[in-house]
Amino acid sequence: MDKLEKMILEYGEVREGNILKVDSFLNHQLNPVFLYQMGEEFYRLFKDKEITKILTIEVSGIAIAVMAALIFKVPVVFAKKTESLNLDKDIYAGKVFSYTKNKEYNIMISKKYLDNNDKVLIIDDFLAEGNAIRGLIDLTKQSKSQIMGIGIAIEKGFQKGGKILRSEGYDLKSLAIVDELKADHIKFRIQQ
Amino acid sequence: MDKLEKMILEYGEVREGNILKVDSFLNHQLNPVFLYQMGEEFYRLFKDKEITKILTIEVSGIAIAVMAALIFKVPVVFAKKTESLNLDKDIYAGKVFSYTKNKEYNIMISKKYLDNNDKVLIIDDFLAEGNAIRGLIDLTKQSKSQIMGIGIAIEKGFQKGGKILRSEGYDLKSLAIVDELKADHIKFRIQQ
Repeated sequence: MDKLEKMILEYGEVREGNILKVDSFLNHQLNPVFLYQMGEEFYRLFKDKEITKILTIEVSGIAIAVMAALIFKVPVVFAKKTESLNLDKDIYAGKVFSYTKNKEYNIMISKKYLDNNDKVLIIDDFLAEGNAIRGLIDLTKQSKSQIMGIGIAIEKGFQKGGKILRSEGYDLKSLAIVDELKADHIKFRIQQ
Repeated sequence: MDKLEKMILEYGEVREGNILKVDSFLNHQLNPVFLYQMGEEFYRLFKDKEITKILTIEVSGIAIAVMAALIFKVPVVFAKKTESLNLDKDIYAGKVFSYTKNKEYNIMISKKYLDNNDKVLIIDDFLAEGNAIRGLIDLTKQSKSQIMGIGIAIEKGFQKGGKILRSEGYDLKSLAIVDELKADHIKFRIQQ
């Protein structure tokens, strides 16, 4: 998505440890009109997949997911992060390791909001090693729902998450793939 | 807002401790079309206030705020909750006491995204004692921005937050005000 690449080049800040900060439009301040345009792009990419539900994870996935959901006209469910492992039998629970924060956290969704009739589009803001997405895939498997696609705003193509997920057959589409991330140089993968 | 009252009566679950769970459309699963309608209602209520920015707090405020912002065509800034008190000089920082979780947490926003030129609409999902809103007001005061209004989805009218904020002169509008909350009976305040 050309506009996302332009936004990253104009507003993104590169920090040590392969961190790309896009706080001005995606992770702290939100640009709603641009988020809606990202939603339209996800719709263009996945509109034939008969999506019944969009799944994301708090916090940063929510705004993009809800904009896409407005266009798909389906509900969003966001996985909640919890401090303690919740073993309530009414929930699907899993674990995610965060490299950015160097700790493991628990995630959960209520069984009420995802079941074996659902055709799921997973949406998130970033994909690097793929740990958060892996956690969401685990929850969908518990629910016996079907993953129809995975939509990412910004994929770090130099980390292995995207490559592995595609090799496993997931229909993963990223609106921008960053192949090189340096303070003075960001290189994007050319996509069709 | 009649439709919000209907949604609360149909899908809300009353729990001990004056908890009203609206997980099916607002706090875990999100109904994007209905959230957009809430955004339209906030626009109707505050459209003459020359709003330049919508301020909310993670997590539950984000989806409503971004929908309203899509209609106002202004950015959202969401205050982040942090475990440690961050004394970075580039941020506005404050504290919020959560009755629901019985603990105090730190909140922050980057100075980049709020300043003395901003006319702010604060939006949040719930108002009870008003602690989260008080924290957001504190951050806006630090930024010297101007609070033009406060928009709440669901106010618990039997708790004192709303009454105090109105007595201080804030233009506070709630889409639904719950005056009585019992498992078998929810009573709404009649509003114009």
